[in-house]
Amino acid sequence: MIGWEDVYKVVVAMVPLYVALVLGYGSVRWWKVFTPEQCGAINRFVCYFTLPLFTFEFTAHVDPFKMNYLFIGADAVSKVIIVVVLAFWAKWSGKGSYCWSITSFSLCTLTNSLVVGVPIIKAMYGPAAVDLVVQSSVIQAIIWLTLLLLVLELRRTGLGFPSSNSDQDLEGSADNTGSSRPAFWCLMKTVWVKLAMNPNSYACIIGLVWAFISNRWHFEMPSIMEGSILIMSKAGTGTAMFSMGIFMALQEKVIACGASLTFIGMILRFIAGPAAMAIGSIAVGLRGDVLRVAIIQAALPQSITSFIFAKEYGLHAEVLSTAVIFGMLASLPVLIAYYAILEFVP
Amino acid sequence: MIGWEDVYKVVVAMVPLYVALVLGYGSVRWWKVFTPEQCGAINRFVCYFTLPLFTFEFTAHVDPFKMNYLFIGADAVSKVIIVVVLAFWAKWSGKGSYCWSITSFSLCTLTNSLVVGVPIIKAMYGPAAVDLVVQSSVIQAIIWLTLLLLVLELRRTGLGFPSSNSDQDLEGSADNTGSSRPAFWCLMKTVWVKLAMNPNSYACIIGLVWAFISNRWHFEMPSIMEGSILIMSKAGTGTAMFSMGIFMALQEKVIACGASLTFIGMILRFIAGPAAMAIGSIAVGLRGDVLRVAIIQAALPQSITSFIFAKEYGLHAEVLSTAVIFGMLASLPVLIAYYAILEFVP
Repeated sequence: MIGWEDVYKVVVAMVPLYVALVLGYGSVRWWKVFTPEQCGAINRFVCYFTLPLFTFEFTAHVDPFKMNYLFIGADAVSKVIIVVVLAFWAKWSGKGSYCWSITSFSLCTLTNSLVVGVPIIKAMYGPAAVDLVVQSSVIQAIIWLTLLLLVLELRRTGLGFPSSNSDQDLEGSADNTGSSRPAFWCLMKTVWVKLAMNPNSYACIIGLVWAFISNRWHFEMPSIMEGSILIMSKAGTGTAMFSMGIFMALQEKVIACGASLTFIGMILRFIAGPAAMAIGSIAVGLRGDVLRVAIIQAALPQSITSFIFAKEYGLHAEVLSTAVIFGMLASLPVLIAYYAILEFVP
Repeated sequence: MIGWEDVYKVVVAMVPLYVALVLGYGSVRWWKVFTPEQCGAINRFVCYFTLPLFTFEFTAHVDPFKMNYLFIGADAVSKVIIVVVLAFWAKWSGKGSYCWSITSFSLCTLTNSLVVGVPIIKAMYGPAAVDLVVQSSVIQAIIWLTLLLLVLELRRTGLGFPSSNSDQDLEGSADNTGSSRPAFWCLMKTVWVKLAMNPNSYACIIGLVWAFISNRWHFEMPSIMEGSILIMSKAGTGTAMFSMGIFMALQEKVIACGASLTFIGMILRFIAGPAAMAIGSIAVGLRGDVLRVAIIQAALPQSITSFIFAKEYGLHAEVLSTAVIFGMLASLPVLIAYYAILEFVP
């Protein structure tokens, strides 16, 4: 059984995130510190400077030769389960659509693991659990976000989507179906350029390269380099939450997509995602704290990158914006509930 | 004798500050991440959020009942020496002027103690020395910056300045000299409002009030409050240096005031200030590491607040801007030189 002091530890880890969020929100809504154009500056500062260095700092300290492959396997199994279920739904259900499958996949699987996940899971299960969260964030950034980008790009160009199932907001795709190989390479190039333009994804890749080299030849990061990264990366959590607060303040309403879609989004995020992860974890034989961490990290708030992609491709951006905002607000009670329930797992 | 490894430790502490500075500079000059209006946003973010919380975090952990009063006395003596010398110079020298005395006082005494001082002095003399730097920063914020504001306000209104010595950029003052008591209270009110509008000064005052209460009744800051402050205050150093880099990038030239004034400014900052501090320290009988810390902290780069005041009151802003920028660039070799020389102090 977890006691009040365990719950309090989690609250202590989460409240600062909300404080930074509220400061960001208040700076725009109440105190008018920033003009709308200036809000963009804070966003760019986070996006180009603090967050990539924050990601790099975590990724570079992973030991790629000692990853928990069972945990990563469980993560992969859970995602495959979700993909299969959504593919079936899109193909066979009357209401199914490929576009909604993409959004549902985002909602089920993509989490804000570093900014929100690390402090919470550290408070719950200690520093060893943080390693697992960082590993899953690396896999998410390198594999799953790339795949999501690929699928979104496929949808945009109309390649590989059966036209009968295409959503109404997919423009002029039917004539493109089944086009030639050069188109595919052109698309791969687009995906590659998008990734290369995303500072966070190359922070992750460079971090991973560093991690491989330093663990292969057993050397530490020189303290001068460590300090130079830390000076900005330490600002990562605070500025990222502050920026999310600004983003919330700039929305006309917190729930942009209507109550029923919000409800479905929350179900996918906080129930379906962790449930799939639980199935995957049990399938590969995880137990104890690793199992708990696997499930909790699947119940973290929605990844902000998934919203950014949705906005860029014009695919249900308002649903993902609501999932990011409302999910963040709802996550404190949800995560504490999971934490309490998971104590009963052997 | 200090060895190379001691010097390296100081370099390790300083280089990250320059990295953040260069990122800020590059973001505007090379990568065009921010428009000029957006630069203002970063500045406001630092000024209203990260820096006040950074100041509060340090100030709140001072123990006001266990301050090093000898050290503070030495600081006061050194400042009195400078004030007396400058007053004599203004009154009796042909070249002397009260306006230049104010600027010279800023240049001699006001340092960037928290952002730059804390990491450097920690690398040089360990955590106990940081306490001294924080104490001197509290005194600077509460006493000396208030006095500077008062003198600048006096000059602006023309009260208390002998008109014969007034500088050419002092507008219409002669008729005001010797005006009545209500004018004085009006002026005090202006100073008070300016201080109350400066987030950093009330962060310092609130921090000090907290320090008094918590040390009087022996309680610790609750971890939830500590965490909520740390989430933004950890961003303090990085964002403040980044913002200074942006400020440098927005200047047309690094040396805005000409070579000879820059030279005089550097002499006042890096020679006269520490020399006065050395006299004050020896007068009150400081020795050992406390003496070294006293002298080194008097040789830190110029306080940014002193530039902000100078700009607000239109008094030699370009000289102080140069002192801030050029002083920051010059401080690495200067501080290491002081560090090496001070080893020979008994």
